[in-house]
Amino acid sequence: MSSNSLPALIDALRRLPGVGQKSASRMAYHLLQHDREGAQLLAQALQQAASRMRHCSQCHTFTEDEVCDTCRNPQRDASKLCVVETPADQAALERTGAFRGLYFVLMGKLSPLDGIGPKDIGLSRLFERATDGRVQEVIVATNFTAEGEATAHVIGEALKARGLKVTRLARGVPAGSELEYVDLGTIAHALVDRR
Amino acid sequence: MSSNSLPALIDALRRLPGVGQKSASRMAYHLLQHDREGAQLLAQALQQAASRMRHCSQCHTFTEDEVCDTCRNPQRDASKLCVVETPADQAALERTGAFRGLYFVLMGKLSPLDGIGPKDIGLSRLFERATDGRVQEVIVATNFTAEGEATAHVIGEALKARGLKVTRLARGVPAGSELEYVDLGTIAHALVDRR
Ligand SMILES: [Zn+2]
Ligand SMILES: [Zn+2]
Repeated sequence: MSSNSLPALIDALRRLPGVGQKSASRMAYHLLQHDREGAQLLAQALQQAASRMRHCSQCHTFTEDEVCDTCRNPQRDASKLCVVETPADQAALERTGAFRGLYFVLMGKLSPLDGIGPKDIGLSRLFERATDGRVQEVIVATNFTAEGEATAHVIGEALKARGLKVTRLARGVPAGSELEYVDLGTIAHALVDRR
Repeated sequence: MSSNSLPALIDALRRLPGVGQKSASRMAYHLLQHDREGAQLLAQALQQAASRMRHCSQCHTFTEDEVCDTCRNPQRDASKLCVVETPADQAALERTGAFRGLYFVLMGKLSPLDGIGPKDIGLSRLFERATDGRVQEVIVATNFTAEGEATAHVIGEALKARGLKVTRLARGVPAGSELEYVDLGTIAHALVDRR
């Protein structure tokens, strides 16, 4: 096989979520034909991110440091902890500018059908973090999907049992939708009206 | 900026065709959270392909060698030259098993609105290749889209003026469709019925 780096590239691109054989071929041809600089840039970015990225010891989001910028920021209100499923959800909340507390990023949600249980999304780490003595309110901002609601329920029950105030984003967020795709105004309102 | 390798990765992923901000974020999170091995594999595949891939001096497709495997194959019928837009189109024709000649891959199509002219798709290289004295028939298998038809027209006129027999895939291929997505039987029929 003298020209095997093309099929190897197509196979590697297929590991990206949502990318099948046809898309992977188009991506490979595009990079090789029109954007070799982009191919080199992407290769470097992948290597750097994969080797440097780890999880914040406080909030579990991706960071290159022991503790992430947000958790290190003394301006943030350490009495409020907002629980989200993904860094993208945290970013959506941050863009509203309506929340000045801290976060805990689950990096997933409970999903018994996919075999994703409490251990996989670090719930014991969350319970430890929420009972540090400074957190007074936990705002559960998991998605308003069936799995997100179930995750919120489990977290809510556990934290209330530990004596914490637990709130949920208000129903201003349309049911069945994912935070990442909701407009900023709706999220900001839901944050103010949390229950 | 202590954690800038994540935004750098998302930016780099956005250079892939069809990938916007949301998809790029999801891809980055997926690789970092669930598939670091995939991230490393993709980085290596990109680097190898970008540094090794060049164009076959005969047919212009991607290869790591001076001349690609197909062009080097003495079993192929050098009297027939099939012109396609992309390596994916060539692969679709090859899968039918109905063509034993050689190929010329344009790596594009004429598209005046996008500023893509004869030079960009190497038409002079094609005319040189087709007039090597061995080629007797050129089968123009550009896509049956407006741009593909226009490209076929320009190629056909130029090659007929050089005394070559020029054919086009039969209309068994549905109008407005792209070869890559057409079923094998239809392509095979169209090849037999070329006009
Ligand atoms: Zn953090
Ligand atoms: Zn070749």
